This record gives sequence, structure tokens and C-alpha cells, in this order.
Amino acid sequence: MKVMVLGADGYLGRPTADHLEANGHEVMRIDSFMKRHMLCDYGLKPLRQTGILGSIRSCDVCDRGFEGFVRIFGPDAIIHLAELPSAPLSMRSHANAAETYKNNVMSTLNLVWAVNKHVPECHIVKLGTMGEYGTPNIDIEEGWLDVEHKGRKDRVLYPKKPGSFYHLTKVHDSDMLAFCCRNWGMAVTDLNQGVVYGTDTGHGDTRFCYDHMFGTALNRFIVQAVAGVPLTVYGSGGQTRGWLNIKDTLECLRLAIEHPAEEGEFRVMNQFTEQFSVLELADLVFDVANACGLSPQMEHLKNPRNEMEGHYYKAEHTKLLDLGLEQTLLTTDVIHQMMDYVFSHKKNIVEKQIRPTVKW
Amino acid sequence: MKVMVLGADGYLGRPTADHLEANGHEVMRIDSFMKRHMLCDYGLKPLRQTGILGSIRSCDVCDRGFEGFVRIFGPDAIIHLAELPSAPLSMRSHANAAETYKNNVMSTLNLVWAVNKHVPECHIVKLGTMGEYGTPNIDIEEGWLDVEHKGRKDRVLYPKKPGSFYHLTKVHDSDMLAFCCRNWGMAVTDLNQGVVYGTDTGHGDTRFCYDHMFGTALNRFIVQAVAGVPLTVYGSGGQTRGWLNIKDTLECLRLAIEHPAEEGEFRVMNQFTEQFSVLELADLVFDVANACGLSPQMEHLKNPRNEMEGHYYKAEHTKLLDLGLEQTLLTTDVIHQMMDYVFSHKKNIVEKQIRPTVKW
Repeated sequence: MKVMVLGADGYLGRPTADHLEANGHEVMRIDSFMKRHMLCDYGLKPLRQTGILGSIRSCDVCDRGFEGFVRIFGPDAIIHLAELPSAPLSMRSHANAAETYKNNVMSTLNLVWAVNKHVPECHIVKLGTMGEYGTPNIDIEEGWLDVEHKGRKDRVLYPKKPGSFYHLTKVHDSDMLAFCCRNWGMAVTDLNQGVVYGTDTGHGDTRFCYDHMFGTALNRFIVQAVAGVPLTVYGSGGQTRGWLNIKDTLECLRLAIEHPAEEGEFRVMNQFTEQFSVLELADLVFDVANACGLSPQMEHLKNPRNEMEGHYYKAEHTKLLDLGLEQTLLTTDVIHQMMDYVFSHKKNIVEKQIRPTVKW
Repeated sequence: MKVMVLGADGYLGRPTADHLEANGHEVMRIDSFMKRHMLCDYGLKPLRQTGILGSIRSCDVCDRGFEGFVRIFGPDAIIHLAELPSAPLSMRSHANAAETYKNNVMSTLNLVWAVNKHVPECHIVKLGTMGEYGTPNIDIEEGWLDVEHKGRKDRVLYPKKPGSFYHLTKVHDSDMLAFCCRNWGMAVTDLNQGVVYGTDTGHGDTRFCYDHMFGTALNRFIVQAVAGVPLTVYGSGGQTRGWLNIKDTLECLRLAIEHPAEEGEFRVMNQFTEQFSVLELADLVFDVANACGLSPQMEHLKNPRNEMEGHYYKAEHTKLLDLGLEQTLLTTDVIHQMMDYVFSHKKNIVEKQIRPTVKW
């Protein structure tokens, strides 16, 4: 298949493109290098920064020029990973919220018009987030909910409860794509992804962030354990989320494009393998670090985020398993391997960029 | 109260500001005159164009400068009517969709940050539309839905099903404002308004559009009857919606600001008085025109919109009645009065701008 990967310079985008090529697909890589520039602007250093591949086409998906790449390449599928991924960034200031809105919502709008005009049968695979759902008091389904109300029935998009301007942009994207399926007969897969961890992509290094703006909990805990600073748990750590290994992200994306949504179908899949609370993850890392003789410490910070720390959480995630996903679960071996990797780049760790600075 | 009216140069904004002043409120009027310029750009003439009031502050709510007006005036309430209101416009082209997104979503984003920074206790009254709900197979409630699922319960924002990019922007606004209530404790009233008709505001003339881009069905039918051209019903005309007289719009907005939402409350009210199908309205106008000896005609056009023409529709609308709304129902007298008004401006009618040109 001919696949465009938007955001191909990113933590997930780069190995996704590699993985698809390794599986025989013809890939066009697109990126604006915005994230790379932002890391510089904010003085945030990844554990490992990657070089820029010569095969990446430099293009902002928000720009009109993007349409030309779609027209010329004529993709069978487009994987849209070209969004700003940070809740803290979006809550930092008005300008950052506006930047996140512009980049995420306007890129998706540009994408759907370009696809509808030039390749209306192209399958769009959009990376959403489990965070769109929030923490409802009912089971989280895969995108749709059957509702009975006053004796009548309907099937509706699962009601969302996003927790930041970033998460709002992802909800908007989903709503927009669902409309394009209804109205234009577009074929879309919306992947509501859990939090990704891991360093081993199977395709070489990728950019690995652990800072307060672009890092996530498990990756951060491992860096903190290796650096010999306390593992920072936000609040009580009772926040439960879905998690998955970066290897599984690549496989999920491959499975999604090789088993496309149908014409007019807005297919939603919850892309994660296991549920953990933040405290459970900290405990896991703590125990492994302890066994390695690292004398780890743990510290509960006042939660910088406005989120529930004790809540019901049960989310369906069977559709990708049905497509054949073989899960890479979070074993102590996986944590050991991540720790080894971080050790090998220990000299790059900048402690002062780990603690949260944005509060909401 | 000190009330800012955003979009104070519009069909609803101008008489709303007049109505609030007549009721003793101190009003700051804001508009960018964008709609006025767009009508010129697209060669669309209102039946009656109004002059520009000297008291309007020229400001685009999307611009940073808007924040200054909020800071200096220090409003108790802000009524946000400064959005592009046209579904056909938003479906016309990528550029028009992007323009609608930018104007509507980014203005609301600018508004919430300005309010949170300078007047966090200010009550925001946002004009949404009943069109956000679409035509679900269950009863439409006022903004929230109690859901029971697999033996557990939650109260969720009513699931939406917008039918155009314009309607999507209104859904995005609602989601964003609901988040600001949850996160910042903002006080917001979201008014999901039905289709407005009428020429008599009680406060002098307002701009009256009947064209295919900015006009709506009942106003259009009356102009067509007066012009002696067929009343154009889209498809079978079975599309049922909520409707209200422009006088009731003004009263609803007054009631909303005089009975504000509480801190942290996202209050949603469905702002309409009666349900009609498009064909019922055409029949009503037809009969009145006939009684006046006008020899009206009716024509069913192939529906330019992608919408259901036969569907369930039952929407709650009790909250504004509970606040004291005295409804102005659609009587033959009201239609007679509108017809008289249109007759008095008959020379301004441009027939060629009535038929739909945008299809989706």
C-alpha cells in the first residue's frame, strides 16, 4: 500500500514509517519539524535526539501546500500523527492553547478537504487519545454507545470529557472526522491511544522525551530512577489510564491500515493493552530499581493537573486484538530493558526539566 | 449590569444590545463588521441594510486586542454572537470552512482566556444552535443526558450530531466552554437556539437576509411569496426543527443574563418556542399569501443538504419558560406583519440570490 505518515519525525511517527516500510509498504514521510523546534525553543532536551532523515518531506499539514503531496502521491492510507501532543503545553498560556488548536484542528480540516478532493477513497487513520473520554463513571466503549432514553433507542458517539485544551482538540478532530464519514462517505479509523512507553521500537532509536511538557509518566519514572532522583507521582497516583508499549503502537497502526475502515465508516478502536494507575507504575519501577541496587525514592507532588485521583475506570479494547494484535505486556523484563537503555544515555539527563511547571 | 455584546452589528446582536439598554443595562457593543463585508464580497443584498452605529467598538474577537476591551469595561456578562452563522458557507470550500473554524472556534478560545484572566466571575452567554444535536432518534434534552450503561450511571453532555462544518464549530465551542466550567469554575450559559424568524424587533430595523447563504426558511418563504416566485422547499420538507420569533430571542438573552449560571455551572437551555417541519411553514405562508390574493406557488427542490427528511424530533425547551419567557407564537397575524414589512421593501428583493448554490 501507499501510505503517508504525517508527523514522521516524531517519537511514534519515525518508527511507524520504518515499520510500514519493513512490512512492504511504500511510505511518504511528512513533517514540519515543529516539535523539534519547540523542544529547542523551550530548552528541553530529549534523552536521545535523532538526526533528520533525508527522506522526510518538509511540509506543515496546516498549509495549503500539503494538498499537493496528497495529489501527487495518491495514498491508499494516511496516518495522521502530526499533532501537538502536550496537555501541559496547551494549558500553559493563551498563545500555547491557540497554537495547539491551530496546529491540531486546522491540520485535520486541511487533511479532510485534501483527501475529499484528490483521493476520496483513501483511508484516514487518526491518532486520538484515551484522554478524550476522561474518567466517566460508566464503562468506556470503543467510540460508540448504545443509548436507551425514555423508551427510545439510538447509537451515539461515546460522550467525551476532555481534561485540557489539548484533549479538546482531539475531541474536535474526532467529531470532524465522524462528520466527514457521514457526509462524504469517508473511511476513517480513529485510534484512541493510551499512554505509550518504551525505547525499543525494533527499528533503531527514536526521540525519547521525559521532560514535564512532552514526557509521560512511565518513561519519566525510569529516567528518575536512573538519575537517582525521586519518582514524582502527581497527587495520590490513583489516576488510572490505559498503557501500551511503543512496539504495539507500530503494530496497531500496521493492522489498522492493512484492515481498513469501510466507505462511510467511522471506526473507533481503543489502542492500549493494559490499565494501570500511576502509583502502580511507580511501584513497578521502584521495585525493579531496588532490585538493581539503585536506592530509588518516591515523592508525591501536589497534582499540577485538575483530574480525579480516585475514580472508576474500565475501558474496552478488543477490536485491535480481533485484528490480530499480539500484545507486548509490561513485564519487569521490559522495565529492565528500558532502564538499560536510559543508563546508556545517562549523561544526557537534565534533571531540572523533569518537574512540572504548568498547573491547572 | 455591565454587558458586552459581541457581534452587535448583526441581525440578532443589534436589537439585543438595544433591548438590554432599554431594560436598564450598560452595554458595550463589539463587532468586526466581518458579516457586513462578506455580504458585499459575495454580492448578497439584505432586504434592508442598516447603518453602522457610532457606539460600536470595531474589534475582531479573534484578535489579542479584544482582551483590552474586557479588561477596561469589566463586564458582568458577555453575550457571544460574533460567529459566522452559515452552514452553506462552511460547506462551500476549504477556505470557507477554514474561515468559519477560525472565526468561531478561535474567537471562543480568545474569549475564555480573556475572561479567565481579567473577569473570572463574568457570566458568558454563548449562542449555540439546536442544529448541534442533529436529529437523534431519542428525545433531545437541554444539554445533558442521564445515561445508564451496564448497570452503572453517569450524567454526560448530550451527544451531538452536527450536519456541517459550521455546526461542528458550534459543537466545539460548547465542548470548550463546558471544559472551562469544569476546570476554571467559569459560569456559562449555552443557548441552543432554534431557527429565528421575524422582522419586528421592538427596537427598529435590523439587517434582514433571505439569500441562500445567510437566510433561513421562513424568512425566505415570505420574501418569495411577496416577490411572486415559488416557495422553495428543500426536498420533501419533512425536516423538523425548533423555531422562535426574534422578539423571543431578545427576551431569552435578557432572561439569561438577569438569571446567570452559577460558578462552575455549564447551563444549557434550548432556545425555541415551537417545532415545525419546513413543509408546515411553507404551507402556513402559502395559505396567508393565498388569502391576500398573491397566487403563491410552491416548488420542491432536490435537497442541497445532506440531512434526513423524515425523522423523529422531540426537543425539551422548558428552562427559559421557567425563567419567565412569554412566548410569541407563530400566528397568521405574525406572518401577515412580516409580509407587510417585506412588501414595504419589495423593491430591494434580488431574486437570483435566493436559490441554493452550495450542495453537500
